[in-house]
Amino acid sequence: MKAEIITIGDELLIGQVVDTNSAWMAERLNECGIELFQITSVHDNREHIIAALDEAFSRADIVLTTGGLGPTKDDITKHVLCEYFGTHLIEDTRVREHIYDLYRERPDVLNRLTATQWLVPECAEILENRVGSAPLMVFRPGDKILASMPGVPYEMKIAMEEQILPYINGIQHSEVRIQHKTLQVNGIPESSLAILLEEYENSKPEYLHLAYLPKDGIIRLRLSSYGEATEAEMNEWFDRLKMLVADYMIADTDEPLEVIAGRWLQERGATIATAESCTGGKLASLLNRHSGSSAFYWGSIISYDNSVKERLLGVPSEMIKAHGVVSEAVVRQMADAVRKQIGTDYAIATSGVAGPSGGTPEKPVGTVWIAWTTPDGTSAECFHLGKLREQVTDRACQKALVGLIQILKHQQPVAKHQ
Amino acid sequence: MKAEIITIGDELLIGQVVDTNSAWMAERLNECGIELFQITSVHDNREHIIAALDEAFSRADIVLTTGGLGPTKDDITKHVLCEYFGTHLIEDTRVREHIYDLYRERPDVLNRLTATQWLVPECAEILENRVGSAPLMVFRPGDKILASMPGVPYEMKIAMEEQILPYINGIQHSEVRIQHKTLQVNGIPESSLAILLEEYENSKPEYLHLAYLPKDGIIRLRLSSYGEATEAEMNEWFDRLKMLVADYMIADTDEPLEVIAGRWLQERGATIATAESCTGGKLASLLNRHSGSSAFYWGSIISYDNSVKERLLGVPSEMIKAHGVVSEAVVRQMADAVRKQIGTDYAIATSGVAGPSGGTPEKPVGTVWIAWTTPDGTSAECFHLGKLREQVTDRACQKALVGLIQILKHQQPVAKHQ
Repeated sequence: MKAEIITIGDELLIGQVVDTNSAWMAERLNECGIELFQITSVHDNREHIIAALDEAFSRADIVLTTGGLGPTKDDITKHVLCEYFGTHLIEDTRVREHIYDLYRERPDVLNRLTATQWLVPECAEILENRVGSAPLMVFRPGDKILASMPGVPYEMKIAMEEQILPYINGIQHSEVRIQHKTLQVNGIPESSLAILLEEYENSKPEYLHLAYLPKDGIIRLRLSSYGEATEAEMNEWFDRLKMLVADYMIADTDEPLEVIAGRWLQERGATIATAESCTGGKLASLLNRHSGSSAFYWGSIISYDNSVKERLLGVPSEMIKAHGVVSEAVVRQMADAVRKQIGTDYAIATSGVAGPSGGTPEKPVGTVWIAWTTPDGTSAECFHLGKLREQVTDRACQKALVGLIQILKHQQPVAKHQ
Repeated sequence: MKAEIITIGDELLIGQVVDTNSAWMAERLNECGIELFQITSVHDNREHIIAALDEAFSRADIVLTTGGLGPTKDDITKHVLCEYFGTHLIEDTRVREHIYDLYRERPDVLNRLTATQWLVPECAEILENRVGSAPLMVFRPGDKILASMPGVPYEMKIAMEEQILPYINGIQHSEVRIQHKTLQVNGIPESSLAILLEEYENSKPEYLHLAYLPKDGIIRLRLSSYGEATEAEMNEWFDRLKMLVADYMIADTDEPLEVIAGRWLQERGATIATAESCTGGKLASLLNRHSGSSAFYWGSIISYDNSVKERLLGVPSEMIKAHGVVSEAVVRQMADAVRKQIGTDYAIATSGVAGPSGGTPEKPVGTVWIAWTTPDGTSAECFHLGKLREQVTDRACQKALVGLIQILKHQQPVAKHQ
């Protein structure tokens, strides 16, 4: 079964909004055995939306649209769908009651524009949008399905999970099992990896697809099957892949590095702190991004200004004078100090030139020192991470986490020092 | 002049990668007076790519493709373009020399797969990809343009800015002036805002488009013109809009809140620190995300674990026992303490229940206390920010920044206390 997504909104086509919805929807569709064939972003324009609907229905069984459902003049999706399916708007008392209920404590929202939200296309099935005023509309042209939902990400997510996907599964349950398995490697160029895997690629069944996704030095290797492979077969070929790349593998899942590092910390019964200069709290917020992180992440000292390094992390001003603030001596001191101050088993410190200014011939923009302190001692490494500020700080966090994972993989559980 | 983007890669259609490229490209195209008509994401599949090319050329003058240019088997864009334009691959000595140069210090990358990267379609013009091995290819079917570039975001950005856009401008310079102007309002529902602006919307010229982009309580109002309006006319109607929404306006640009807050801080000659619990460093990393932030942002204490609140921020354990860690008393103490510790003029503190666990009937998930300390005193406010962890922490940062902007707008420049 094939689906397509049409995202509707001028904001997507002038670059004011990044479409994060489609990737999330794609994952959920795959989990239900539905292949996503194409994503199309179109303007809030009648002819454009109609043309995209025609094209999508010529290829797919299920068409999902997001966006264009607000009460303001620029949102036209509902009207265009009415025209497309030859129907007209009628008042839906259930939707009206829901909206009254939603805004019970905010009567100022219940104005005449909000009232247009309970007008719905007569031939559509209306599903409940628990968290918003835009109705979720389902149309059934022939044996196909069109579902229209809001573009606001959290409304779309609740709509998909609670309403649209159960609805689709109830009507067109897919027996196809789409499988993806991903592992992550570090420290080998893409072309060398492909040569290492040449025999593997030539011997695997045609219906197992291997994809390479390189980013910032890490390559994700994904094995996919769209229905043909059994689970056992998939596991067997994935295990072979793992064996072949064992020397470079940092994870056998597609999870973010901070999740992998967090799991290792929890398995070791260990806690961590960070002292950050150039990464400015980004590493901290990665480490506590996911639920359960309070089990291992305790806190950080973000010492953006040098006075903070001196006062809160005990970096002597002479050390900064002698070595510079981006130096092995300084990051080692930062890591050791924050581990003591916060009272954790591990600590990571970063200091670098994120740019665009601040670079020198010896320490150009992109130079980052990272230190890792463990119950067994401290290590540090210097990296050169490019020229763009956001890239430098993102990559510094990535290097910090890869280093942490590599340390944790090879260490014994720590004896708690508290 | 119309352009379309075709993003190529299975990873986009199984949800493994979010397409951040298209929004960035759309902005750059608009700046050059080129309208982006449609974005289409397709699989690494010959028939699919060819169909998308046919459709895009039927609508647009310029087609930009990203992705599928790596040296591995799953990347097929170059071969499909060869077939599409009826040409074949030839060796390009300039590309070969560039690749040798690029990997001078990494001879392990110069293997036989990398060597396929200097094979290019005979009829294509090859532009220099300064930072990668995939050739940038330009085809000229009739008076149209197709440019193919890598999907890795930073390679794409450098390619667009240094090569593709100058190339397009050289051939089809657009005299059309696409203008967008955006302001941001807070504290008014979308439907009420639309009623407030009803007369404005009815009286403005047809060719000025007004769009409403609501997200998490903030609404961005965008006025757009695709060539018809003069700059003076655009400014006049934007100024009228500003006057009408003055009571709710927090910024008259589309810049992120942290940039607006940072500019206010710099104008006031003031510095800031944060003490974060539930936001875990996210607010810090926003404040120092952009270049120049070291002028106003000095540092943070991230006190995720309560022991850190007690030890580094002087929150008495009795206070936590009496009021709970998510309380007005605790965030006020955190803000005051971090301002003193770091030695800044301003400070913000956050403490909340980010979830999914940790909620109670009195303080459910989403409850967040925020305190702002200024040279004139401390204020605090409690918010309820939803149920999803990432949403709660994102919105908490947003509320913290909106509150800061509102304080800074109404305050005099501070007398430096150092």
